[in-house]
Amino acid sequence: MTSSYQPMGSRWYHNIPVISSLQWLRQHHQHHTNTGHSTRQQPHEPIRPNEGISHDYQVRQRQQEQIATSDLVTRQTMIWDTPLPLDSGQQLAPVTLAYETYGRLNEQRDNAILLLHAFSGDAHAAGYHHPSDRKPGWWDEMVGPGRPFDTNRYFLICSNVIGSCCGSTGPSSTNPATGKPYGAQFPVITIADMVRAQVRLIDKLGINQLMAVAGGSMGGFQALEWATAYPERVRGAILLATTAQSSPQTVAWNAIGRRAIMSDPRWRQGDYYDHEPPADGQAIARMVGHLTYVSSLSIDAKFGRLFHQHEGPQFTLEPEFEVERYLEYKGTSFNKRFDPNSYLYLTRAMDYWDLPARYGSLDAAFSRSQARFLVLSFSSDWLYPPSESQRIVDALCRVNRPVEYAELPSNAGHDAFLVNHHVQSPFIEQFLNSLTVKELTLGA
Amino acid sequence: MTSSYQPMGSRWYHNIPVISSLQWLRQHHQHHTNTGHSTRQQPHEPIRPNEGISHDYQVRQRQQEQIATSDLVTRQTMIWDTPLPLDSGQQLAPVTLAYETYGRLNEQRDNAILLLHAFSGDAHAAGYHHPSDRKPGWWDEMVGPGRPFDTNRYFLICSNVIGSCCGSTGPSSTNPATGKPYGAQFPVITIADMVRAQVRLIDKLGINQLMAVAGGSMGGFQALEWATAYPERVRGAILLATTAQSSPQTVAWNAIGRRAIMSDPRWRQGDYYDHEPPADGQAIARMVGHLTYVSSLSIDAKFGRLFHQHEGPQFTLEPEFEVERYLEYKGTSFNKRFDPNSYLYLTRAMDYWDLPARYGSLDAAFSRSQARFLVLSFSSDWLYPPSESQRIVDALCRVNRPVEYAELPSNAGHDAFLVNHHVQSPFIEQFLNSLTVKELTLGA
Repeated sequence: MTSSYQPMGSRWYHNIPVISSLQWLRQHHQHHTNTGHSTRQQPHEPIRPNEGISHDYQVRQRQQEQIATSDLVTRQTMIWDTPLPLDSGQQLAPVTLAYETYGRLNEQRDNAILLLHAFSGDAHAAGYHHPSDRKPGWWDEMVGPGRPFDTNRYFLICSNVIGSCCGSTGPSSTNPATGKPYGAQFPVITIADMVRAQVRLIDKLGINQLMAVAGGSMGGFQALEWATAYPERVRGAILLATTAQSSPQTVAWNAIGRRAIMSDPRWRQGDYYDHEPPADGQAIARMVGHLTYVSSLSIDAKFGRLFHQHEGPQFTLEPEFEVERYLEYKGTSFNKRFDPNSYLYLTRAMDYWDLPARYGSLDAAFSRSQARFLVLSFSSDWLYPPSESQRIVDALCRVNRPVEYAELPSNAGHDAFLVNHHVQSPFIEQFLNSLTVKELTLGA
Repeated sequence: MTSSYQPMGSRWYHNIPVISSLQWLRQHHQHHTNTGHSTRQQPHEPIRPNEGISHDYQVRQRQQEQIATSDLVTRQTMIWDTPLPLDSGQQLAPVTLAYETYGRLNEQRDNAILLLHAFSGDAHAAGYHHPSDRKPGWWDEMVGPGRPFDTNRYFLICSNVIGSCCGSTGPSSTNPATGKPYGAQFPVITIADMVRAQVRLIDKLGINQLMAVAGGSMGGFQALEWATAYPERVRGAILLATTAQSSPQTVAWNAIGRRAIMSDPRWRQGDYYDHEPPADGQAIARMVGHLTYVSSLSIDAKFGRLFHQHEGPQFTLEPEFEVERYLEYKGTSFNKRFDPNSYLYLTRAMDYWDLPARYGSLDAAFSRSQARFLVLSFSSDWLYPPSESQRIVDALCRVNRPVEYAELPSNAGHDAFLVNHHVQSPFIEQFLNSLTVKELTLGA
């Protein structure tokens, strides 16, 4: 049940009650549909302090369960030999982009929604790849029949980004010039470069205008890029826990992560693919990152000052608080699914994200847009705080663009958009509903 | 002028205007006194965005200036062969404690104030050690004639802590059992252990009751320990930017720092004193720490999104934003003065800090105290936020102990107590004044 983004909030824990396998199956697969998704009923219980760790281990130790065939989805790829021009002046070729789709494109081809993932996410937003998968895609509770991104009504596309290690061209891909992985020879990319590749995908899918683009965090960067650089192709933009300009503090956190990876002797200037990867460096980077994704409140609620297996201190330098052990687990487990070089390139792309600098001002950027906007921020998100969403909203209002905004109450920190579905869902559902009424959309 | 705690706020930069050496001398040494301190007039100019970096480099590159003899202070040490009992059940012997004093103990021996430093501080609170010193002690603007801790009136003692690498017994000290540095064989210590050693120092100085104990951050932990474990020996307690219980989030930040150091192959299980130290690990730990000491606001104001020597991105993975380069500098320069093993031991002592757990509740802890309290928090401190000071104040009120509290406006984050002197000084001056009127002090 763990989202691939490793959320730490309510969903992550309280959906795994201590029940028998049979009960679990019944609860999770009782409503199969013919759209490739179940309507799993997952109760939202209040978080109980310190139940996190034990459930975490339960998840890991739980016997693999059979996933219904109707829940299976497949990762797809598109490949282009035509070089992709990059902001740096370099070109990238060939370019592979991984994506998944859910639901069906209608005849008018006007019900497509592009889902854009955050830093460590991937194209696998919903469903299961294999019957033996331990968990579904990272936004599974948001995508499916009857869910906010309703696969009975909309055609969902979730696109990966270039620079990633999850099926698209990135530093671990083969450099055609050498026949070896790019490593640190991969060109430095930007959010605009990522979207430039996605435009090719949307073209290829035969979609002229997206009903909506939607994303949180770095996914929000891409959604903003879509709405301003390709205004005529976006009817609605859903921006969650995001910003129009990476703050110096987020640049600094990213710099620490990069420093940790590049200081690991096993990084070898990025050329480690034939050796052990810089796992310590990336674990440290992820530990830092993870702490910035959650709030002090959520850590208090989940771990408090509990010691692992003891009542008090054991007078050791080794991890002995539950919160330490949890963070350690988060750091090391991340190495199983993420390439340290992608960590470097994607964080750098985020650092460069600066929409006002691109067009002279945020007002100028949004003057280009033709979309309606839904902006949601979360009260305890200190990485992309509500004030940064408010800046987006203020600029949209100044240039008279339609926007709805809510600061949602949440203790989950930045990860809220990945875990506090019940809070954000009504806003997203309503916004998408309104987009289907074409008369309401405005031109520039 | 950089405090040894590496503050990032106003003091650190704007006290180094671009002036000639002669002007500098005149400004900084015009009012010599006979107490070993000058009354340097340092104007408090508003911070200008992005002036930080250039001033930083000015400091480093400035020609060393002559320090007046009257400004010189000496680090002293006391050594005990009697084993010091530790909370872990172990004993430490011999024990050396480094300290400095400023001003004079009066005949009644009732004007002594014990200054307690933060995590990476030392006994050198004020003045200069050598004529060639580039900067004075870490709280120089707070300690001296006419300053809040007025050396014309009070006898100031600044004590180092055991576990430190700044003159007191710590992991880099010789283990008498082996004749080699302790390294990771040093016993794990607590705040109570640190204070237990300080009690010996105060005994030896012939001081029965301290007029006050004062400290910020980990210095506040020690002040709280003094006021509750040795209630009859403390008349007043000044607690700045501190907490009665290390939050799970601060434990987590510390865990990341330790992970970085212990993952550095040069750490060698703590036994690196004959080799290169784990400098990369400690640099990363310090970068993380430093970011937690400052606020997003102060980073914005000082660095914004400025690139170093360029107008825009150079499309490189290397540090190119000013904030990245600054953080890098903070990390690497820290290695010149701090022992990575001390980083491990002192952060662990901070993790264990839990006054309510010790006595059953915070109310029970403060029921023991006989001191008057001054509690100051800073609005932008998110590491030890005002809410944690408020918890101390609430408990003191519940058990009817005299306390004054202010949440002071500051953009400097946790470091405010080291840099926003003008904000905290009036409260401290007034509080110390009131302590000299003995009738006002209350018994338990």
